Amino acid sequence: MSTLLITGGTVVSSTGRSLADVLVDGEKIVAVLAPGSTLLGHDLAGSVDTVIDATGKYVVPGGIDAHTHFELPFGGTEASDTFESGTTAAAWGGTTSVIDFAVQTTGQRIETGLATWHEKAAGNAVVDYGFHQIIGGVDEHSLKSMETLLDEGISSFKLFMAYPGVFMSDDAQILKAMQKAAELGLLTMMHAENGPAIDVLAQQLYDQGKTTPYFHGVARAWQMEEEATHRAIMLADLTESPLYVVHVSAKQAVAQIAAARDRGKNVFGETCPQYLYLSLEEQLGATGDPTWGDFEGAKWVCSTPLRSRADGHQDAMWQGLRTNDLQMVSTDHCPFCMKDQKELGRGDFRAIPNGIGTIEHRMDLMYQGVVTGEITLERWVELTSTTPARMFGLYGTKGVIAPGADADVVVYDPAGHTSIGIGEGRTHHMNMDHSAWEGYEIDGHVDVVVSRGTVLVSDGEFHGRAGHGNYLKRGLTQYLV
Amino acid sequence: MSTLLITGGTVVSSTGRSLADVLVDGEKIVAVLAPGSTLLGHDLAGSVDTVIDATGKYVVPGGIDAHTHFELPFGGTEASDTFESGTTAAAWGGTTSVIDFAVQTTGQRIETGLATWHEKAAGNAVVDYGFHQIIGGVDEHSLKSMETLLDEGISSFKLFMAYPGVFMSDDAQILKAMQKAAELGLLTMMHAENGPAIDVLAQQLYDQGKTTPYFHGVARAWQMEEEATHRAIMLADLTESPLYVVHVSAKQAVAQIAAARDRGKNVFGETCPQYLYLSLEEQLGATGDPTWGDFEGAKWVCSTPLRSRADGHQDAMWQGLRTNDLQMVSTDHCPFCMKDQKELGRGDFRAIPNGIGTIEHRMDLMYQGVVTGEITLERWVELTSTTPARMFGLYGTKGVIAPGADADVVVYDPAGHTSIGIGEGRTHHMNMDHSAWEGYEIDGHVDVVVSRGTVLVSDGEFHGRAGHGNYLKRGLTQYLV
Amino acid sequence: MSTLLITGGTVVSSTGRSLADVLVDGEKIVAVLAPGSTLLGHDLAGSVDTVIDATGKYVVPGGIDAHTHFELPFGGTEASDTFESGTTAAAWGGTTSVIDFAVQTTGQRIETGLATWHEKAAGNAVVDYGFHQIIGGVDEHSLKSMETLLDEGISSFKLFMAYPGVFMSDDAQILKAMQKAAELGLLTMMHAENGPAIDVLAQQLYDQGKTTPYFHGVARAWQMEEEATHRAIMLADLTESPLYVVHVSAKQAVAQIAAARDRGKNVFGETCPQYLYLSLEEQLGATGDPTWGDFEGAKWVCSTPLRSRADGHQDAMWQGLRTNDLQMVSTDHCPFCMKDQKELGRGDFRAIPNGIGTIEHRMDLMYQGVVTGEITLERWVELTSTTPARMFGLYGTKGVIAPGADADVVVYDPAGHTSIGIGEGRTHHMNMDHSAWEGYEIDGHVDVVVSRGTVLVSDGEFHGRAGHGNYLKRGLTQYLV
Amino acid sequence: MSTLLITGGTVVSSTGRSLADVLVDGEKIVAVLAPGSTLLGHDLAGSVDTVIDATGKYVVPGGIDAHTHFELPFGGTEASDTFESGTTAAAWGGTTSVIDFAVQTTGQRIETGLATWHEKAAGNAVVDYGFHQIIGGVDEHSLKSMETLLDEGISSFKLFMAYPGVFMSDDAQILKAMQKAAELGLLTMMHAENGPAIDVLAQQLYDQGKTTPYFHGVARAWQMEEEATHRAIMLADLTESPLYVVHVSAKQAVAQIAAARDRGKNVFGETCPQYLYLSLEEQLGATGDPTWGDFEGAKWVCSTPLRSRADGHQDAMWQGLRTNDLQMVSTDHCPFCMKDQKELGRGDFRAIPNGIGTIEHRMDLMYQGVVTGEITLERWVELTSTTPARMFGLYGTKGVIAPGADADVVVYDPAGHTSIGIGEGRTHHMNMDHSAWEGYEIDGHVDVVVSRGTVLVSDGEFHGRAGHGNYLKRGLTQYLV
Repeated sequence: MSTLLITGGTVVSSTGRSLADVLVDGEKIVAVLAPGSTLLGHDLAGSVDTVIDATGKYVVPGGIDAHTHFELPFGGTEASDTFESGTTAAAWGGTTSVIDFAVQTTGQRIETGLATWHEKAAGNAVVDYGFHQIIGGVDEHSLKSMETLLDEGISSFKLFMAYPGVFMSDDAQILKAMQKAAELGLLTMMHAENGPAIDVLAQQLYDQGKTTPYFHGVARAWQMEEEATHRAIMLADLTESPLYVVHVSAKQAVAQIAAARDRGKNVFGETCPQYLYLSLEEQLGATGDPTWGDFEGAKWVCSTPLRSRADGHQDAMWQGLRTNDLQMVSTDHCPFCMKDQKELGRGDFRAIPNGIGTIEHRMDLMYQGVVTGEITLERWVELTSTTPARMFGLYGTKGVIAPGADADVVVYDPAGHTSIGIGEGRTHHMNMDHSAWEGYEIDGHVDVVVSRGTVLVSDGEFHGRAGHGNYLKRGLTQYLV
Repeated sequence: MSTLLITGGTVVSSTGRSLADVLVDGEKIVAVLAPGSTLLGHDLAGSVDTVIDATGKYVVPGGIDAHTHFELPFGGTEASDTFESGTTAAAWGGTTSVIDFAVQTTGQRIETGLATWHEKAAGNAVVDYGFHQIIGGVDEHSLKSMETLLDEGISSFKLFMAYPGVFMSDDAQILKAMQKAAELGLLTMMHAENGPAIDVLAQQLYDQGKTTPYFHGVARAWQMEEEATHRAIMLADLTESPLYVVHVSAKQAVAQIAAARDRGKNVFGETCPQYLYLSLEEQLGATGDPTWGDFEGAKWVCSTPLRSRADGHQDAMWQGLRTNDLQMVSTDHCPFCMKDQKELGRGDFRAIPNGIGTIEHRMDLMYQGVVTGEITLERWVELTSTTPARMFGLYGTKGVIAPGADADVVVYDPAGHTSIGIGEGRTHHMNMDHSAWEGYEIDGHVDVVVSRGTVLVSDGEFHGRAGHGNYLKRGLTQYLV
Repeated sequence: MSTLLITGGTVVSSTGRSLADVLVDGEKIVAVLAPGSTLLGHDLAGSVDTVIDATGKYVVPGGIDAHTHFELPFGGTEASDTFESGTTAAAWGGTTSVIDFAVQTTGQRIETGLATWHEKAAGNAVVDYGFHQIIGGVDEHSLKSMETLLDEGISSFKLFMAYPGVFMSDDAQILKAMQKAAELGLLTMMHAENGPAIDVLAQQLYDQGKTTPYFHGVARAWQMEEEATHRAIMLADLTESPLYVVHVSAKQAVAQIAAARDRGKNVFGETCPQYLYLSLEEQLGATGDPTWGDFEGAKWVCSTPLRSRADGHQDAMWQGLRTNDLQMVSTDHCPFCMKDQKELGRGDFRAIPNGIGTIEHRMDLMYQGVVTGEITLERWVELTSTTPARMFGLYGTKGVIAPGADADVVVYDPAGHTSIGIGEGRTHHMNMDHSAWEGYEIDGHVDVVVSRGTVLVSDGEFHGRAGHGNYLKRGLTQYLV
Repeated sequence: MSTLLITGGTVVSSTGRSLADVLVDGEKIVAVLAPGSTLLGHDLAGSVDTVIDATGKYVVPGGIDAHTHFELPFGGTEASDTFESGTTAAAWGGTTSVIDFAVQTTGQRIETGLATWHEKAAGNAVVDYGFHQIIGGVDEHSLKSMETLLDEGISSFKLFMAYPGVFMSDDAQILKAMQKAAELGLLTMMHAENGPAIDVLAQQLYDQGKTTPYFHGVARAWQMEEEATHRAIMLADLTESPLYVVHVSAKQAVAQIAAARDRGKNVFGETCPQYLYLSLEEQLGATGDPTWGDFEGAKWVCSTPLRSRADGHQDAMWQGLRTNDLQMVSTDHCPFCMKDQKELGRGDFRAIPNGIGTIEHRMDLMYQGVVTGEITLERWVELTSTTPARMFGLYGTKGVIAPGADADVVVYDPAGHTSIGIGEGRTHHMNMDHSAWEGYEIDGHVDVVVSRGTVLVSDGEFHGRAGHGNYLKRGLTQYLV
């Protein structure tokens, strides 16, 4: 077991910052101490194997991306990042824990779906990983299987109000699953879009020859996100079950969440970098003509969709992060290449695999929000690490720099710079032939990344390896009021 | 400089808890470490002067009571606690910092008022103390003097919308003061009740022979708290000034604050234990007849007043604490004895000095909310210490258990018990001949209280002394979004 | 063609009242005139066949009950009133127009359902009648048939979000029907309850042995009415289609309607006398034990259900009528006898036919709201006649006392009295073996009822006949903003 | 007494329209009849003195402008219309009743102020007129005098939250006056702007050299209208007094009124044509530079001020009229000439007399809202005549075309055209040397105007005379719920 001292940096928590050193012994943080290499006269710096100088830099708990989809089958293809490539990219970007979604589909046993996911991940992950369980088919079997999820280290599961015939649960199914969740203490995550209505709109647009990527966003109208969000909230209210709404993108959905929270409900909302920075307008392309042939917009096809900047959705997401009506920023990382994948939907936006790859850039993109004054430095830590840990039952082990916690630490350099993309002189580590974030510039840099005491990234070099990442057995959410 | 190790306890922060030891060197915390007496082989327990065993107990940052009134002149008398008696009671109750209100009145220079307060406090305080500035007379002089407040270590000031002719500022004055505050970064605190309207109602009740303490609460109708809260919010909106509403007691006022916060405004609300536990109904006394002669209800005369439990105000306050629409719990400690003080208002509720003494019981009363499930343990720490520190520019020094912070630490025993009051076998340390909290029982106990490394309370004995407490020069609020 | 003069009464409209005479020539009102029997010296009283003295009484437009179900097949039985018995009761109660629901079910052609209804009604109605169209199966055929509805005199249709497998449309179907409605100008009426969720709750209650009528109301939780109301509103928003929510009973549903209206949406709400006067508590029976064997509560089983008085739903309905967030009061008249009908659900509340019979008492019950100060006299006329006429495209012919309108006039006696029920000395004319309103006393009385110039009721005697009632071809709604 | 028959027109009420003739005998409407000149064989057309052919035109109740200021002393000058010139203009524009404001100022007796107003009006008015009472100084005398107002035919009075030192009442005064109003049934009208705060802002702008008319609107920030509106609502809530907010111009003020109405409160709002059509942006002038020397914008200086179109205030006013959150459109007619009057404020916007003259154009400008689809034809009648009559206790006599009502009738020609202004080929009848409405074109025309049976305007000629107008003794408001 080796020892490590991160010295001279500013340790940032969700409530404040202080100059402090962080002492790591093996995989754990064992002390947070006043700067300087001695304690009561004992020489600490001289006692450790490695010293990392963090002077002038921020020392923060490793990022937790609580919403990823590695190797997810979708629309006849599969998300292009494996657990190895995806977690490698995560590590590069300062994210030391991911929570992926194991998938159960109608007719399948939850145990089977979960086993498949363990198989994909085992020995391949570079950083620690946990699972949420997607329940794509609520029936007597899956309701029964929910009872064993917590023993498996899974304290949250996701339902869909979209994708009828694929993942969607109807309201009777949602009600039953939420009742069971309330009984067990599990957290219900919801993809809140009214799928049946959206599919009608999509078909109508297609029938009208409106087939380009732009119309993906038109079909997935904000009204249907707002509606489903409210419906999920009321079903949660009826069952007294906590609710976590994933990938919120419509300002009206934020308003619904805010209203529920004002009534004291345990309702939570997550947004993603794409809903903070990108917009529907971009998908119109240079000509601003929604019916043009350009397929460039396909790279921004995700669900919920990008929404209109003119209507203020992006501003509302930032505000939601400030007001804590949105508590977390995950990526919904679901990468597809243009070639052979996104291209499946040329001529029919409905066939474009839904997803954007962001896992490598989340910490940077959110830090840029600190630079531009959208959020505070402390809120950055809270949104990207502390709250994800609390929300999903990892806090104490993850999400905090404190003795006893895993030594997942990121040294972030506010004087550094990061250029995102794969164009001239740029690179990324996700398995994607394009970047949704091409050209984004960040006034900061992930400098050193430590996972359970092991340095994964330093001096611009990667020291990680597949298999370092362990499976995270999670406990119940620690975020309820 | 002596050293101290608090060992074996559960350190609780606003986001979570962990088993950890706290090492104190002189007045500062120098390390938070994994439990056990060694670090990298160095023997720490053997290196310190004192070891406090906190096994089975909570180790929390010392309480900060951000709203006290020692020796406040009011209604022809003066609040009965001196800085010495008040801070002694604070220490007994686990509160290691107080922020009292220096008073400027119309025509007086702020500097003069402030100097008076320094004089009252200097050499007398048992725990650290800071000042907010009451500006009872906004004019060119006081606006100018605001510019030096921050240099004096005062980053917040209070205005009154009540008490016309005494402390009240009119809307023109409030506007000017808020503009100045926005310019300087100061935080505006507001007593939000429509004083002129309330005084009309009070006079009318008196004229109708409705003179008992109960009518104090009737006169101070919730509509006039809600109104003033909204007015203050709009003036803050207009001036882009942060706003902190003190002693919120009406559920409709919470709703106004919540609405402003949903719009992303820096609007904050404080409530007090009395608005969480006590109610207008109690003031009716045993007979339930508002016109009876009993003067017992006088002990609960405070402003804002206690409100109707039947109307759900108390529940709304607890909910506001959970939803973070209310961010803090202070006491508004403003003690008056029944004899010679409260009695001034026998026969005319308007002459009863306004105030309740709670400084000794705040940590206990709020902990009881943890026991009954109203708030979480972490929220208890946040409401009573971390947020007050952040709100009022003390965080880092106070409000957190972290290296570099002042060693203000409370060991709280969840297996202990506290009986409040001055009846048979009970005692308190406030200078009051009665208790507003007589008979309250708490399922927990303040066990050890450390202030800047000095043990003030342990084993049921008091080791503090007047003069230990230092003046706290506060910085700008660290709580803005 | 005979002539009629109603003289000496106070003509009441939705905006005010005036002393005026009403002159009828044949089926039409031909003049409203200053009181007295002459006009410019012409003797009018002497020129008419009949004079009705309305001195001291109110002269109001005949009631329009826009929500009735005669001979509706439901739960293996059929609503017990025929067009003849139902419209006879209507006439007795001062209602001179009804709008019944023609039913189309899945797989059936709309034309077929409509023809069936014409067959039931033709030659049997005592007062004029129109139809809304229930579309129980939205498909290509029924969407196409919607295009001919207006030609048939039908400008409104109803969808169900409840009763899955029977009447329910899913959101895709609702969306398509609303789009068609927006195109055609038709008004979408919605039974807004989340049927799939309610059916789960009902099954669970049944499985727990909770089988008495009381549990009907428990299963149909307010959350599921509120949810469906909001969902309907958002689908209407998306399609820019007006929406009329039938039989609103939950205060939270009113709040949703009010919020949509505040945003300027054409969203309307109807309530019924049962939601104004009756409550869930009554269904508990004398013992207050929900599991008792008494089946008395079955007579109040209707959907939406009666709701808790303690929770304030009834007060909220009255308030909604005052604020115009609810615009109309219909009966949802759907009578079933206890014997052989309601009794089908003994031992299983799910099998109790849903419905209450009120058609005879609506005008009286609402007038009682005038007596008790809940609504004004003018609002009574507006809620029961003028707005129904405007809402459903009948105004001008119906709903107003003005030249050119059908001579549907009620003389209402505020000095009269009406005892409702079928007990000792009481009677009603609906085909029911019980009354949901047994024992209700009304401080007013329907004195004379005129339909298209023919006196149907006077001096406590019935002069109507089956076949007098004509089919009303309705135009587009005249109520949109 | 002469007789008059208006024949062939479409009579429009607030709920609908019908082809009908209107028969007038002397000053009163005596019958509304089916078209045609006979009734039961009696020849009516042949029996009358005058027949007006309204074929193809609308026949509506004469307009009621419930907010005018003739000869109002303001800012060292006096509103430029006398009762004669003002009511002449009113008549030309289809307004047959006005309610002007009698003024009481501090220290003055109400009786004195009222007598002054009777003196100004007596023998000079061309159309009927009533008075509201301005109470500029609430004290024991004026509170006492309120008790006689109703006997004087005055059922409403106005208070000001603006203009400190001139008209303003503080909250204690408002409270007392509202209590008295609640006791007497009087309607409290409120100028809802926070004057003290606005005056600070205005002074600051002036001190910064921002002196042009544009800054009038900047100083009178929407926050201070919203604030005062809410404050008035809460004082009304506390006193259970109905409240009528005059000249609402901020969308946030509408939202406050809507919220109160949703809670069932008797809170009403009036807007004016200027807030529907004109905007702050116009005052910037051609260059868009707020500091330019142009004084043109002075003609649009009124209080509340014109507001930003970009922020959507105008749209919100129209929507408020549709949702009935605003119930009436009055003019706040308060004309000042540029020369010698508005010019007083050249170089200091604070000295520009506040007011716009619109009395002649209100019916036309609102009719244009019918043409553009903002409101329905029925709503036009309701906003301009029926609701003003009900709101201010005139209904029955005014505001409706019904037997017994005064024969105040306007024949409005939808095929006509009206060009507003005083430029080339245009004219108006107000005593103003400019028009705030120069260049506005209306797709309709006031054709014939009848006041109490006398034709004032026909064939483009004026037949009215000073002294025709009578004083209207008004009763209690008929609009409460």
